[in-house]
Amino acid sequence: MKPNFSLRLRVFNLNCWGIPYLSKHRADRVKRLGDFLNRESFDLALLEEVWSEQDFQYLRQKLLPAYPAAHYFRSGIIGSGLCVFSKHPIQEFTQHVFTLNGYPYMIHHGDWFCGKAVGLLVLHLGGLVLNAYVTHLHAEYNRQKDIYLAHRVAQAWELAQFIHHTSKKADVVLLCGDLNLHPKDLGCRLLKEWTGLHDAFLETRDFKGPEEGCTMVPENCYVNRQELEQFPLGIRIDYVLYKAVSGLYISCKTLRTTTGHEPHSGSPLSDHEALMATLCVRHSPPQHNPSPTHAERSPLISVLREAWAELDQGMAQGRWWATIAGYVTGLGLLLLALLCALAAGGEIREVAVLLWTPSVGLVLGAGAFYLFHVQEAKGLCRARAELQHVLGRAREAQDQPALLLGQQEGDRAEEQ
Amino acid sequence: MKPNFSLRLRVFNLNCWGIPYLSKHRADRVKRLGDFLNRESFDLALLEEVWSEQDFQYLRQKLLPAYPAAHYFRSGIIGSGLCVFSKHPIQEFTQHVFTLNGYPYMIHHGDWFCGKAVGLLVLHLGGLVLNAYVTHLHAEYNRQKDIYLAHRVAQAWELAQFIHHTSKKADVVLLCGDLNLHPKDLGCRLLKEWTGLHDAFLETRDFKGPEEGCTMVPENCYVNRQELEQFPLGIRIDYVLYKAVSGLYISCKTLRTTTGHEPHSGSPLSDHEALMATLCVRHSPPQHNPSPTHAERSPLISVLREAWAELDQGMAQGRWWATIAGYVTGLGLLLLALLCALAAGGEIREVAVLLWTPSVGLVLGAGAFYLFHVQEAKGLCRARAELQHVLGRAREAQDQPALLLGQQEGDRAEEQ
Repeated sequence: MKPNFSLRLRVFNLNCWGIPYLSKHRADRVKRLGDFLNRESFDLALLEEVWSEQDFQYLRQKLLPAYPAAHYFRSGIIGSGLCVFSKHPIQEFTQHVFTLNGYPYMIHHGDWFCGKAVGLLVLHLGGLVLNAYVTHLHAEYNRQKDIYLAHRVAQAWELAQFIHHTSKKADVVLLCGDLNLHPKDLGCRLLKEWTGLHDAFLETRDFKGPEEGCTMVPENCYVNRQELEQFPLGIRIDYVLYKAVSGLYISCKTLRTTTGHEPHSGSPLSDHEALMATLCVRHSPPQHNPSPTHAERSPLISVLREAWAELDQGMAQGRWWATIAGYVTGLGLLLLALLCALAAGGEIREVAVLLWTPSVGLVLGAGAFYLFHVQEAKGLCRARAELQHVLGRAREAQDQPALLLGQQEGDRAEEQ
Repeated sequence: MKPNFSLRLRVFNLNCWGIPYLSKHRADRVKRLGDFLNRESFDLALLEEVWSEQDFQYLRQKLLPAYPAAHYFRSGIIGSGLCVFSKHPIQEFTQHVFTLNGYPYMIHHGDWFCGKAVGLLVLHLGGLVLNAYVTHLHAEYNRQKDIYLAHRVAQAWELAQFIHHTSKKADVVLLCGDLNLHPKDLGCRLLKEWTGLHDAFLETRDFKGPEEGCTMVPENCYVNRQELEQFPLGIRIDYVLYKAVSGLYISCKTLRTTTGHEPHSGSPLSDHEALMATLCVRHSPPQHNPSPTHAERSPLISVLREAWAELDQGMAQGRWWATIAGYVTGLGLLLLALLCALAAGGEIREVAVLLWTPSVGLVLGAGAFYLFHVQEAKGLCRARAELQHVLGRAREAQDQPALLLGQQEGDRAEEQ
């Protein structure tokens, strides 16, 4: 790598709101998105909510000259909705589907059927290894009484762990996506603290877009204004996050966000705003990473503690639902036995036969509910155990500042 | 690291056959396993099929002095059955649950309910980073007509990808577990070719154990002899696999396998045999990794092609089942409508009411079957796409031998 090395990276991110039959003007918006991406010629375009594979294939054909590499991340029943278009060859890709992603019986919310995931692309640019991640976390339907909070925190943790474990040899890490988390939400803080990723909006000196960097704004004609009642300026839930390893320096030169309409035609591309970042990677003079001080570590410890408590509460709730469902299944089985006896005895036979269907439904439904919540509690317990371990190590590091956490290779094992 | 550096690592692996209420003499075997592990004091003991968390907690208490670090990998409804005991502190751990793992309606096989997974532990030993993986793939119930073949190949691929992407900064990689794959099976070849892992049994010069390194042998009183009818010597499905990065050299000094009974008491510890390996990591003189020649690459290409075909066939089958289930769901809905009309009209009312339950069951069952197989086809399609990409890159590498695959950082992107 040359000493005066510099790499400029232009990145585009958009939650495309591409629900077949439900999202307004989908075909037109996808066409305009393709035109826009062709005109702008970014290095990487990372998209969420491209639920229809036909839309992806349409964009793939349209963008082929400017973005020769592309990938659609398939998962779950409907899909992850994630896809990517790249000007540069994609060296490797893989994905991780989140263990917990809502409830199958919340059909009207639909997240469970999607298989929300994080996709990883490895690119080699100017001698650097770039790990680019694209993700979309579980939606927030009711901020006051959020039944999905524990799941979203667990997803943020899994996302952070996936990035942590798969990016150890990367020079530059980039994460784009719709996190469905406000900047100060627990999941967002957890993700940033554990991965060390920086927020383009907070870091850049050249931002143009809605106030406070909002990515869902009331000016957008597709936005449900009721959802933004509490937030007159809008909300910021879509992010460009990045970091570079020691010896390299990354900065966000400019960040542009659409403001409720596409710059060229005036109509919005989606109900979310698009993020366009220009990142610059430079070879900074090699410098020793300072040991984290107590003050630097404490946010990690406090956010880990907070997340632990949230997962613990979610786990208790999951177990409570499993217990209730277990009892209901047992009662349903008793009812079925009673109905069989009544039908066989000839008393109120027709009523017994009529009640047969709802009773079988009750047993099967409660049984499935039981199994689902057992699995939910196990998933939350797993995330809690990982968090607890990291918390323990962070506390040790606080007590012995020389012992660094995570990436650092302090070795306490005996040499044999 | 000292120039004459040498690290000795004693590793134990066992599929414990710990199914509550079903596995014979479980409590006694777990107790004897604990005694054995305490006596031998390995560096790492990696266990599979510890289905009961109580068994893990029992072992944890018993092994605490000799193995201060331990972890139980929770997943799915029943669990992954994986756990680990370590003499050295565990720096980090995480896990990946396989996307595909059999069929929920094959209740008698039960794999789907387990949440089969791969667990990762990061240890720092003598200045080296050791990534230790433990796994257990889907069981093989009928080798002649294996309906789970595509799932097992997809699991082997996900396992290989997980190791590939999470071990890029590790000095030593170790994988132990019950792969449910014979040494020449497609999944086993795929895993070895893509990760570059070596097989302790094939590498060591000092092996003591059953002929051909079998880990399920007819001498073991717990083994179902019918399952071994085709294999009079037994089968080898449990493995210790390893690799070290360039600049380090790893070898298997000794490999011992129990021979149907525990060395001390004479009774077997499980229906599988235990593997005990002594690995030695040395600092070999730094040497340049030779560019892979055509001859070296071609096994990767041919195994990728074979796996691609297997996944493609599995995908077609998944889609076929989804289509059939879709039609049956439609027919079931029609039948329900007809029954409603008959019941309302008063004709053969009792018959109509009686048929109501099986019809609702048919619609719900076929609907669930449809959703499951749509998700199966998507999962296989995802693995096939990843394989196809690697295959394309391997072919490019074959055509341009200077362009190395995977770990190598050949950069074909423009510097900006």
